[in-house]
Amino acid sequence: MSKIIVQKFGGTSVGSEERIAAVAKIVKEASKNNPIVVVVSAMSGETNRLINLAKSFGDNPSKREFDALISTGEKVSAALLAMALHQIDVPAKSYSASQISMKTTDSYSKARILDVDGEKIQETLDAGIIPIITGFQGITESGDVTTLGRGGSDTTAVAIAAQMHAERCDIYTDVDGIYTTDPRVVPEAKKIDVITMEEMLEMAGQGAKVIQIRAVEFANKYKVPVRVLSSFESGNGTLISLEENNMENGLVSGIAFQKDQVKFTLHGVSDTPGMAYGILGPLSDANIEVDVIVQNVSINGKTDFTFTVSKEDESYALETIKSINTSLEYDDLLVDSNIAKVSLVGVGMRTHAGIASTAFKALSDSGINIQMISTSEIKITIVIDENATEEAVSSLHKAFELDK
Amino acid sequence: MSKIIVQKFGGTSVGSEERIAAVAKIVKEASKNNPIVVVVSAMSGETNRLINLAKSFGDNPSKREFDALISTGEKVSAALLAMALHQIDVPAKSYSASQISMKTTDSYSKARILDVDGEKIQETLDAGIIPIITGFQGITESGDVTTLGRGGSDTTAVAIAAQMHAERCDIYTDVDGIYTTDPRVVPEAKKIDVITMEEMLEMAGQGAKVIQIRAVEFANKYKVPVRVLSSFESGNGTLISLEENNMENGLVSGIAFQKDQVKFTLHGVSDTPGMAYGILGPLSDANIEVDVIVQNVSINGKTDFTFTVSKEDESYALETIKSINTSLEYDDLLVDSNIAKVSLVGVGMRTHAGIASTAFKALSDSGINIQMISTSEIKITIVIDENATEEAVSSLHKAFELDK
Repeated sequence: MSKIIVQKFGGTSVGSEERIAAVAKIVKEASKNNPIVVVVSAMSGETNRLINLAKSFGDNPSKREFDALISTGEKVSAALLAMALHQIDVPAKSYSASQISMKTTDSYSKARILDVDGEKIQETLDAGIIPIITGFQGITESGDVTTLGRGGSDTTAVAIAAQMHAERCDIYTDVDGIYTTDPRVVPEAKKIDVITMEEMLEMAGQGAKVIQIRAVEFANKYKVPVRVLSSFESGNGTLISLEENNMENGLVSGIAFQKDQVKFTLHGVSDTPGMAYGILGPLSDANIEVDVIVQNVSINGKTDFTFTVSKEDESYALETIKSINTSLEYDDLLVDSNIAKVSLVGVGMRTHAGIASTAFKALSDSGINIQMISTSEIKITIVIDENATEEAVSSLHKAFELDK
Repeated sequence: MSKIIVQKFGGTSVGSEERIAAVAKIVKEASKNNPIVVVVSAMSGETNRLINLAKSFGDNPSKREFDALISTGEKVSAALLAMALHQIDVPAKSYSASQISMKTTDSYSKARILDVDGEKIQETLDAGIIPIITGFQGITESGDVTTLGRGGSDTTAVAIAAQMHAERCDIYTDVDGIYTTDPRVVPEAKKIDVITMEEMLEMAGQGAKVIQIRAVEFANKYKVPVRVLSSFESGNGTLISLEENNMENGLVSGIAFQKDQVKFTLHGVSDTPGMAYGILGPLSDANIEVDVIVQNVSINGKTDFTFTVSKEDESYALETIKSINTSLEYDDLLVDSNIAKVSLVGVGMRTHAGIASTAFKALSDSGINIQMISTSEIKITIVIDENATEEAVSSLHKAFELDK
């Protein structure tokens, strides 16, 4: 018997009655070869409509009620997709998170999946019925509804694929795969056929918005192959491979970039033990995600500590830093919101030297000044002036021959 | 300790963010005197929006999926009302049918309530929190979502009031009580302060759309006093009393009427045993509700059998009758869709003769022809030409001095 494939359809893929009917056809076709389990997001626009309703009752609504409210969106699309499948003679049943006991932690709006009842799903499949499961949501031990945070439907799909020992998890979206970089910026950008999990993790974290990073981590942990493809056009998409070494790819697999970043520099901070934690601890407590962190060598016991956060966290981060002013000594706090992050990603970097210098030469040739550099095993991230983003991405794409 | 009051708010009462905020104030005020349990409908328009989405996938969507779809409306309004209460410092928690184990039969779209978990509601109240419960819906033994049919939120509220041994169930709507007849037709119509359950049952069944008839039956069975009042203006509404005899009222308490009726006459049908069942059985099997039924004495073994159904069931009823043609002999099938039903309702009728003759004289004086007459202990129903409805109601209202 062939193994299960989990198909996940995002908001734009189920964004209208017509789109839902098109998705039903994709599911029907796939169900001829494998048992199919479907996970759906809310119709695009629906979650925002619900969030706007909540905004009438204050800026800080109860998270329990907020999750109860916005989790209705996926229930709607799951029921509609089941109806669309019935219309083309495919047996299907919608299931909410509570109906398949998708248990999560009780951190509303950012809950983490703990467990899912695979038996109910298997029973449904055994009866020749396609289960359509609401993405993005779960229930706590005591039965309250939770949500997994934006993009959480990807995680739902991968978690179910892991639980059901699925052959693969197919993430359907409105793009036809992962590109070497954003084709709107570099028209020569090429679709990548196979990318490693690690590369994908680095790409996703850097703003390649095709699939949620948590879902990739989940897939990595449970060894679920994931494919990203389009529900709008046919094609094989990009396979996120479990193979450690991807012989097909070159040194650099792709270039990710992200604007809307803010750089904080604490100038002249005392370089004492615990200084970094003294800054990052309160930010973490405030749920602010710090991205690039750079600290230079100290001179006369003082150093500069620089980090970036997403622009939406700017005022909150500033407030947090100022509130720890008393216990933290520094000369100046510099905030720069005109920056962008550009990252080269590739498993090939591990074994090849000279990638950094090629990159820096390309940027230098284009007259782009590098403000920060941060490297990991398979990634080089640089922070530059926001206005130079497109030119930097373009020149790096060319330097590493990603268009070939 | 004072007893629980269940408050139910209908679709127009929670029809916008502003209305929900207004409802929160009503709940807060009432919670100062009694423990309050709230039941909500979907925001007005929401259920129709969801039904329209379903219509894209055929005229006859799976009832299981249909119920899963439209039950999301009440989840939205329950969460929003909880947020609105938080905003004015009232602790509240929304609960879906599954969260309070509102068990029903598995007849989707017209499920009947079997049981509800009063303990969870009581625990919430004991913690000083107001439970906001989704009306109109339940779950089956196996956890599928069901709905109770249009207006089912009233039934939810009364069922919870019965379970919690509530002092009263207050049904908030957009009218300020039950009137002697429709004030849009007879401007002199007066609000009734107290009406008996039996009278209310007859009024509701005849098209007084203020409260769902099943809810009144439920209230009658479990002896829950129900009050109907407005969430838009203050006032005491109409109390539906448990007292058998209502001394305050006169002979006739109110006049109900209903258009959109169709009259079927089987002319010259053989008057043999089982004839009536032979006609009504198949209609009942087809879930068509037959209203007024009249059969005249037979002449030469043949009689006329007449019944009315709602206009929306017209074609379905016609089809059903024609399909039993073979086993049922009659000369003619006459269908008249230009009729209306007018009913006089009052417990006083039991003990007072002469009400029928007063009614018939009033109609005769207005030149209105009576097509059918049907009577029960506390009701006289007549079927007339649809165009004469307003004049008939007006002249009867005056004849029984309901404006005094």
